Amino acid sequence: MNTIKGLPVSSGIAVGKVFLKKTISEKISLVKVKDQESEKERFQTARVKAIRQLNEICSDMLHTKGEQEASIFSAHMEMLKDFEFINRVAGVIEEQKCNAEWAVKNIRDELVEIFESMDDEYMRERAMDMKDISNRVIRILKGDESDGTLRLAEPAIIAANDLAPSDTAQMNTELVLGILNENGGPTSHAAIIARMLGIPFVVHPQITSLTANGQLLAFDGETGCIELELDSEILFQYQKKQEAFIEKKRQLEKLKGTKSITGDGYEIVLAGNIGASKDVDRVLQQDGHSIGLFRTEFLYMNRTEAPTEEEQFIAYKETSEKMQGNPVIIRTLDIGGDKEVDYLNIPKEENPFLGYRAIRLCLDRIAFWKVQIRALLRASAYGNIHIMFPMIVSLDELRQAKCLIEEVKDELRNEKIAFNESIPVGMMMETPAAALMADVFAKEVDFFSIGTNDLIQYTMAVDRMNGKVSHLYSPYDPAVLRFIKRITDCARENGIWAGICGEAAAEKALIPLWVGIGVKELSMSPVSILQIREKIQSLSKMDCEKLAEKIFTMSTAREIEDALKNTNKPVSNRRIP
Amino acid sequence: MNTIKGLPVSSGIAVGKVFLKKTISEKISLVKVKDQESEKERFQTARVKAIRQLNEICSDMLHTKGEQEASIFSAHMEMLKDFEFINRVAGVIEEQKCNAEWAVKNIRDELVEIFESMDDEYMRERAMDMKDISNRVIRILKGDESDGTLRLAEPAIIAANDLAPSDTAQMNTELVLGILNENGGPTSHAAIIARMLGIPFVVHPQITSLTANGQLLAFDGETGCIELELDSEILFQYQKKQEAFIEKKRQLEKLKGTKSITGDGYEIVLAGNIGASKDVDRVLQQDGHSIGLFRTEFLYMNRTEAPTEEEQFIAYKETSEKMQGNPVIIRTLDIGGDKEVDYLNIPKEENPFLGYRAIRLCLDRIAFWKVQIRALLRASAYGNIHIMFPMIVSLDELRQAKCLIEEVKDELRNEKIAFNESIPVGMMMETPAAALMADVFAKEVDFFSIGTNDLIQYTMAVDRMNGKVSHLYSPYDPAVLRFIKRITDCARENGIWAGICGEAAAEKALIPLWVGIGVKELSMSPVSILQIREKIQSLSKMDCEKLAEKIFTMSTAREIEDALKNTNKPVSNRRIP
Repeated sequence: MNTIKGLPVSSGIAVGKVFLKKTISEKISLVKVKDQESEKERFQTARVKAIRQLNEICSDMLHTKGEQEASIFSAHMEMLKDFEFINRVAGVIEEQKCNAEWAVKNIRDELVEIFESMDDEYMRERAMDMKDISNRVIRILKGDESDGTLRLAEPAIIAANDLAPSDTAQMNTELVLGILNENGGPTSHAAIIARMLGIPFVVHPQITSLTANGQLLAFDGETGCIELELDSEILFQYQKKQEAFIEKKRQLEKLKGTKSITGDGYEIVLAGNIGASKDVDRVLQQDGHSIGLFRTEFLYMNRTEAPTEEEQFIAYKETSEKMQGNPVIIRTLDIGGDKEVDYLNIPKEENPFLGYRAIRLCLDRIAFWKVQIRALLRASAYGNIHIMFPMIVSLDELRQAKCLIEEVKDELRNEKIAFNESIPVGMMMETPAAALMADVFAKEVDFFSIGTNDLIQYTMAVDRMNGKVSHLYSPYDPAVLRFIKRITDCARENGIWAGICGEAAAEKALIPLWVGIGVKELSMSPVSILQIREKIQSLSKMDCEKLAEKIFTMSTAREIEDALKNTNKPVSNRRIP
Repeated sequence: MNTIKGLPVSSGIAVGKVFLKKTISEKISLVKVKDQESEKERFQTARVKAIRQLNEICSDMLHTKGEQEASIFSAHMEMLKDFEFINRVAGVIEEQKCNAEWAVKNIRDELVEIFESMDDEYMRERAMDMKDISNRVIRILKGDESDGTLRLAEPAIIAANDLAPSDTAQMNTELVLGILNENGGPTSHAAIIARMLGIPFVVHPQITSLTANGQLLAFDGETGCIELELDSEILFQYQKKQEAFIEKKRQLEKLKGTKSITGDGYEIVLAGNIGASKDVDRVLQQDGHSIGLFRTEFLYMNRTEAPTEEEQFIAYKETSEKMQGNPVIIRTLDIGGDKEVDYLNIPKEENPFLGYRAIRLCLDRIAFWKVQIRALLRASAYGNIHIMFPMIVSLDELRQAKCLIEEVKDELRNEKIAFNESIPVGMMMETPAAALMADVFAKEVDFFSIGTNDLIQYTMAVDRMNGKVSHLYSPYDPAVLRFIKRITDCARENGIWAGICGEAAAEKALIPLWVGIGVKELSMSPVSILQIREKIQSLSKMDCEKLAEKIFTMSTAREIEDALKNTNKPVSNRRIP
């Protein structure tokens, strides 16, 4: 038997063929060669293959995305046909008697250096293209014939060594049976997207060395078990598992149309997190009450310039219209940190998570940000839009941001453009400073949404993506829970509501605690909504309050996690019809 | 007149000749040359100059440091004499018809790649050497004839574009009249060390382009004013300033031997921060009561392997003996983050400030850390040593660390080695998690020391070294002050003491607040001690409490800073004799 265990990240059962996506590292060694002619031929063959790849991607892009996206790849084709480039590489092979990889790398570095040293935006972008085409050729020379994009021809399990957010964005998700990746954790972007789409996902650090393209395998996104060899017995087991998983889903389906309410009548709004207007359908499918977090940064990513006001207006309008008067909380641009956008030219930082991101960047580039605020206000005429600011640490920032909204309102009034005069404005609670000052902030906003991912990260001073310290990252940590309680208390005392929109909102074992301290809204990946509704319906608010009291006498994460996972049995079985 | 204004970082008046220390950036452009022979000659000349430089450094090192340190530089000389290296560079100039800089860079990258690809520790170290010697040659080719170290022959003002902590450590501080640097802020390590040594320090972003080696200039570390041209009038002014500065110092001298006590009898311990045993003298000179923070990481830096138990034992013993029974709070190794140590092989991190550092690293490398704990306990037999742990975020970490102390105590008992059975153990309060859980931690330690630099950084989610966001870093922020108050309150309620050892401990405008909320110890750069004593003696505890009450009703950093800077007049003039 050949079972390995990885880190479960998104539940579900996957059985199917592997599609291997291996990014070969940039490491290139100098090898002295005698036969320079055949080395030049290797280069020529790889170059032609690269052009063929680009040609395919290009026509693909024309169909699925548009002319502008496709043009990047046609430009790359032209560069690969350039005589200067071809001759230079051949020259290095000749002179240095070296392998083709080394020669391409050499010319790449030389030309990139020249392009970059020019004081011209356009030429500096050519440096990026030069890197890109050279690396494609090097990849092919090294034997990696995949074209670098995730185009699946048939349903498959993706096994990758480094799945970037842009990969997840590009892939045709309907054909993805499951994802196995070598790095990232439950809170990586790829994982968040997988959960949102209901794709099983397990992390295993050696997965691409243990599997081959086309290999048949099965895995369980709940337990993290991966079966590298499938005999009929294992196949049978996994089919049964898959059936059970589907049966469970069917049970949950029955909860559609019911309320998310405890046995003794405490109701919580269960909302969905989305990254684009089209994701609303999944929230509605899962019977979500509202949109608790619209991450607008995806509108800005994977493109060459910022979205226009009109583009954004349409996205926000469409979303709120689909929600038919139910709240849509739209978070203003949260870029920087781990989310990079080339055209914003954000300088490389030593500690990006403590750097120039989100509201900091927006307040620093008001003209740029105003486009978004205008789009949001214009869209507010068509639905129940709420505006929410990310990463606030000081009252000054909040006031400046609100000031901009008032300024834009004035503009729109002058232009006689409709908008919602009393559009609700709230803020993410995701920094220690904001949590500590919650009593003050509560007097100046309409709602709080607790972003547990960042709040944990800053409270514990831990980069959750850093494997050496990620053990300190826990939603069960008493310090984190004290912060969350403080935020909900301050909200209640000031007559506003507080919700949670981080990963912890859908952490089953924590739901009784959220009920106990009076959280009003939980916003999550749509795929979790019905499970959490089932959980809430099994609880009693009174019991949860007692439990919360007990939890807040505890002083370590382990103690709290144990207590919550053991008391994880239904305390009331009364179901709301 | 030619006066420019920089950011004042360490006070004092400097008048003297400039010693320029300019690190030329690594950027190398390809330039096509016709006369390849003269280009080869340029290379040869630079190479010979580099050897001459190394020879000088080497004999210097033999005198000041030792044989081992000198041997690195003699090895570099040998590498520069290697025919293979010389021929390869000449070959590239010939083949590519390029400038010498480009050729050296090319060969550097090629050889470094080869060395690095070898699976051998020794050879990988040679890669470092290869980079080092190539960069030295490139530096000389670019016209930078300084040898990269700070060896002053006569008293001078250092003007640098990038002063590293290792530079500050290397320099002969008695000859440094003042420092002008292009980057860094009041909390950079160079600045901290300058303040400790009482060296005037101003940051100005273009200083190395505005000055020349040997130029006479003057500057004021209090106002940040730099005089690039000195006529007799300006010289006269600066002499007067210097006299006033000295007179002020003389006044402060009179406070030696007096207590750091308010008019109505509230006494605060004024302690010194040190980085090495020899720094104790400065604390005693400035009449410091104790050592509030011994940063042991400097024992580990700028060397090729970790200090032995014996070395550390001697350093700790010496320090505590010099303090004659007064407390010496020794912080265990706080490495990682911005403080790198090659031999520890800490992987490069995306967000080092949220990463593998301080107690996290120590608990992960117990055998390595135990050496320090043994040295500390052994030294505790000779003086009043306190052990303090940095970067604690959870009770588990604290308990593990205390466990190690008990284990080592057992060992020492078995070995019949003396130590202080009841050695006090405390912790830094520098993370939001620790501050929130202060009530719990207060029951398990003997004291708290608030590290404001990191506490502000994590609370505000701001890297204080990142110029794009450093405006959010403020010790006057209400969230930060609430944390500090919470920590002192929890300490008092649990019968332990809380002090401050970050930069904010010596921020004059904040002293009334520290008195008001009942801080028991302020530990700072020795040079500040008498000024702060003067300040404390001018205060009344009762007035300070009222002031604190008022401050805690405020909700922005600006409001608080204004209030504290305006009420910054003495509220009581009674002096303690």
